[in-house]
Amino acid sequence: MKISAVKKLFVGSPLATAQARHERLTKTSALAVFSSDALSSVAYATEEILLVLVLAGSVALGYSIPIGVAIVVLIAVVVSSYRQTILAYPQGGGAYIVTKDNLGTLPGLVAAGALLIDYVLTVAVSVAAGVAALTSAFPALYDHRMVLGVLFIAGIATVNLRGLRESSNLFAVPTYLFIVSFAGMLGYGIVRWIAGWEAPPPPPAPLAMSQDLTIFLVLRSFASGCAALTGVEAVSDGVPAFKAPEARNARIVLAWLGVILITLFMGITLLARHYQVTPRLEETVVSQLARLIFGGGLLYYEIQAVTTLILVFAANTAFADFPRLAYFLARDGFIPRQFSTRGDRLVFSNGILILGGMAALLILIFGGATHALIPLYAVGVFVSFTLSQASMVKRWLLRREAGWWWRWVLNAVGAATTGLVMLVIAGTKFAHGAWMVVLLIPLLVALFLMIHRHYDDVARQLSLDNYGGPPPIDHTVLVLVGDLHRGVAAALRYAQALSASVKAVYVELDPDRTRRLEEKWGKFGLGIPLVVLTSPYRSLLTPFLYYVNHLLALGENHVVTIVIPEFVPARWWQHLLHNQTALLIKGALLFRKGVVVVDVPFHLR
Amino acid sequence: MKISAVKKLFVGSPLATAQARHERLTKTSALAVFSSDALSSVAYATEEILLVLVLAGSVALGYSIPIGVAIVVLIAVVVSSYRQTILAYPQGGGAYIVTKDNLGTLPGLVAAGALLIDYVLTVAVSVAAGVAALTSAFPALYDHRMVLGVLFIAGIATVNLRGLRESSNLFAVPTYLFIVSFAGMLGYGIVRWIAGWEAPPPPPAPLAMSQDLTIFLVLRSFASGCAALTGVEAVSDGVPAFKAPEARNARIVLAWLGVILITLFMGITLLARHYQVTPRLEETVVSQLARLIFGGGLLYYEIQAVTTLILVFAANTAFADFPRLAYFLARDGFIPRQFSTRGDRLVFSNGILILGGMAALLILIFGGATHALIPLYAVGVFVSFTLSQASMVKRWLLRREAGWWWRWVLNAVGAATTGLVMLVIAGTKFAHGAWMVVLLIPLLVALFLMIHRHYDDVARQLSLDNYGGPPPIDHTVLVLVGDLHRGVAAALRYAQALSASVKAVYVELDPDRTRRLEEKWGKFGLGIPLVVLTSPYRSLLTPFLYYVNHLLALGENHVVTIVIPEFVPARWWQHLLHNQTALLIKGALLFRKGVVVVDVPFHLR
Repeated sequence: MKISAVKKLFVGSPLATAQARHERLTKTSALAVFSSDALSSVAYATEEILLVLVLAGSVALGYSIPIGVAIVVLIAVVVSSYRQTILAYPQGGGAYIVTKDNLGTLPGLVAAGALLIDYVLTVAVSVAAGVAALTSAFPALYDHRMVLGVLFIAGIATVNLRGLRESSNLFAVPTYLFIVSFAGMLGYGIVRWIAGWEAPPPPPAPLAMSQDLTIFLVLRSFASGCAALTGVEAVSDGVPAFKAPEARNARIVLAWLGVILITLFMGITLLARHYQVTPRLEETVVSQLARLIFGGGLLYYEIQAVTTLILVFAANTAFADFPRLAYFLARDGFIPRQFSTRGDRLVFSNGILILGGMAALLILIFGGATHALIPLYAVGVFVSFTLSQASMVKRWLLRREAGWWWRWVLNAVGAATTGLVMLVIAGTKFAHGAWMVVLLIPLLVALFLMIHRHYDDVARQLSLDNYGGPPPIDHTVLVLVGDLHRGVAAALRYAQALSASVKAVYVELDPDRTRRLEEKWGKFGLGIPLVVLTSPYRSLLTPFLYYVNHLLALGENHVVTIVIPEFVPARWWQHLLHNQTALLIKGALLFRKGVVVVDVPFHLR
Repeated sequence: MKISAVKKLFVGSPLATAQARHERLTKTSALAVFSSDALSSVAYATEEILLVLVLAGSVALGYSIPIGVAIVVLIAVVVSSYRQTILAYPQGGGAYIVTKDNLGTLPGLVAAGALLIDYVLTVAVSVAAGVAALTSAFPALYDHRMVLGVLFIAGIATVNLRGLRESSNLFAVPTYLFIVSFAGMLGYGIVRWIAGWEAPPPPPAPLAMSQDLTIFLVLRSFASGCAALTGVEAVSDGVPAFKAPEARNARIVLAWLGVILITLFMGITLLARHYQVTPRLEETVVSQLARLIFGGGLLYYEIQAVTTLILVFAANTAFADFPRLAYFLARDGFIPRQFSTRGDRLVFSNGILILGGMAALLILIFGGATHALIPLYAVGVFVSFTLSQASMVKRWLLRREAGWWWRWVLNAVGAATTGLVMLVIAGTKFAHGAWMVVLLIPLLVALFLMIHRHYDDVARQLSLDNYGGPPPIDHTVLVLVGDLHRGVAAALRYAQALSASVKAVYVELDPDRTRRLEEKWGKFGLGIPLVVLTSPYRSLLTPFLYYVNHLLALGENHVVTIVIPEFVPARWWQHLLHNQTALLIKGALLFRKGVVVVDVPFHLR
């Protein structure tokens, strides 16, 4: 099977450029594609809050309610703020573009670096949490969690390499199934609670506290819960993927997203408190809650299956946004140009491959554990939130369009709130891993700037401004020969076609062979002069390099083309049976100024 | 530090070809260089005999005396036989040459394959035994035996890469020190024994037998002891390295070698029996013997040091002979030609490097244990002994030179004896590892023949017999452009120097860019026509390959030269920032008939 056939099987046939226009999303499709990241975080956000609080003993778990309320308020603020951004940036209001536009390049690059890191973490955290939901239901799979995680990532990457519309169809089912299933579970749980159908479960044995319940601990718990906000920005980044009118549709979808997110997150947090769920490493909070509400059975397994699905598919948001951000950065010359080209299927294949590879690496390094990855998470998102909202604040102030002050207030509240939360997250999680992200962001920015400087430099050197055209060339062709046979004769003929000034060069290792060569030369040398160089130390290379240097020194515009006759054996292993002289010469002269090396193949049967 | 400087430090400055003549050995130097392999085996041959016998309990150890006598007789026969070979082959009577000359190519290749295997084993076994002598004296080093082995091999290889005469000086000291020290130890041991200065040590507790004392076990013990004969052939292989008269000097040195070898081997076997030494895995027999004779102390350490040295240096014999045999095989076209070229220092560097690498690999695979390697050893040597002596038998019979019948008898006895021993060795050691060698020899021969057929085939295809000269060429030059800038302009100028028929080819991914390119083309295109190819699937390669195929189809003698302008950034990492289009095109067209790909570098600062 050829590589191209394998590629076609997994990725699909190439799509023509003209097909690009049709790859747009309806509102319901867009909700499925862009909300899975944000919604899926309700599967672990409550658990992460409780995991920190429980360090101060089970009495501290009651703080989850006020913390949950604070996060709900934060979601409302961020969603309102981003709806203004969509209005101002219908062409796609990613933090990088908005910040670069209003605050300048450097803050824009900080936002971009922060987001790139967070997209990778989104994939790693979502997949790890999805695998945890699966292994909560089927503990036998726990030992294979790393392999499962990597396989899930490979699967999502493949779907994305096939192209966006096909993904949106594939992703609609789990997203809507998740919303319906979780709403059902929470509704049934609340009905049971209000109707008082059963006595509340006996409170679990109180846990001993290992830390005091300090303000720092409460803030760290809040910071962990802020993972619920990651992915909210996806809608505003992806406005151009919506059907027209893009901005209006995107604003509507973002509002839906906010309402659904708040409902599900607060519902789980409330019920977890009511049913006295305590976080355990071997079973997720959602799994415990579903077991208590449904008492095990089919509905419990349905919830676990849907949770796994949404989490694994959540990674898809990052697969839509990372390559798009990489495209913008590549277009502006801050990362390698290769990220700006679309593949066969109209997607940015390089971005998809890099994202999948790095996320899989994180899964392997952190042992596939959600809890190990969480401290690194959300820092980047809040950096970009803050910069993006601050940009909008400046923008409204400068433009003062109709009704600007109301939007200005919304964005100012958003910027101030997210900025504060960013400091809380970075501060409380710093020692647990956030330091890596805090360190990595400036390193990425430095890399962006270095790459940009290189591209600028190249463009200046290649510019046609004030260019008088290329200098004339003084051309000499040398054919390096070790013998005279049909292969060499063909190369001599080729060299004659290149230039009137051809010389054959032979490095003498054994005077007897030289004599025999000279005899043959008279008959088959095509009249080309044969230069014999002596080599007292049996080196082929040294005398030849001296000779080439001598020719180059003859004039500034001298170009020497070195023709090397090369056998091409019929089978690959036969290459080992021939001196790799061509390779040696190429290695020595590669990228040498004024020298062009040409292999002339002679095909053996 | 440049690579060439590192090479000079370890290997020395290049030697001119004219210096080759002076690299000849005196008799005393030759004994040092060619005898270390044969002599060093006395350090382990007795032990290997005892190790097999002890399986039948300590009473069986008495059989070591008759077995030793049988081996002494075998040494005398082989030495006498090889002295006749030297007489007939003053130009170097290696088994390969002698056998090929008299019995034909196939038997010659069997001898060559067997010898190549055994040279590798000589290095591995000698180094492993040398390290064992060292770790017997310093048990703390036992855990590092594999690293030590590899380091020793690297050291010997380096010495050999420096060249033969320097080696012979370096190797004279340990060889003569070994002979004198062992003769001294044995003499002193015998004097103590005869003078009855002490009561013989109390016999060690009798060991339980784990096997019956069968004829098979005695023969296996004898087969293990035959390791003492490996290396005896080295002198006759290396006749051309002697000072004139080569043959006479070599015969004298071989006789010296036989006498010394028999004396030392029989002395150790006798004394080991007298002092009731029992083989132990953690201490060698020679180490135990030296301890008993000298009672520990400085002289004991001297013996261990000298044993280590001779064993490690013994590997040198193989480093002299393996590359020489490889040279003969490469010259005749049975192994890659690269083995027939001398390096800077007039030695066959490739052979030295391959031998060192394979021996180091064996040390690592077999855990650096002599006992694990011994069953593979000596099979190859006796195959080559037998073939070589049989060749001489046929030769004398055909030529009937003066005094032929006496030499014929000696060689016939030699051939019959070594043939019988070969069967005994292969049979008794087969299950313990000899099967690998028995399998590998025909595989190697098949490989030799395959390589030979390839070289013959190539020579026929390249032959100038009945050749009318190369066909004329219909030449087209294509310049693949993605834009027009100074780098492309320089490549266009170069292409114009190559041919009058130049076309630039542009693959259109975006019609806007095409328009901009065409504008610039008018001013800086040097009048070269620009061919624009459309690419609905955004592939650069596919439309271009179609176009090239179309040109090639125009005529049988059509040659298309594809010029690819390539940036050469100032730093290596900057390569990552540019599309590797050139690489892609080269990969797709490499070795394509009628196509020559030329990179034209444009150097960035």
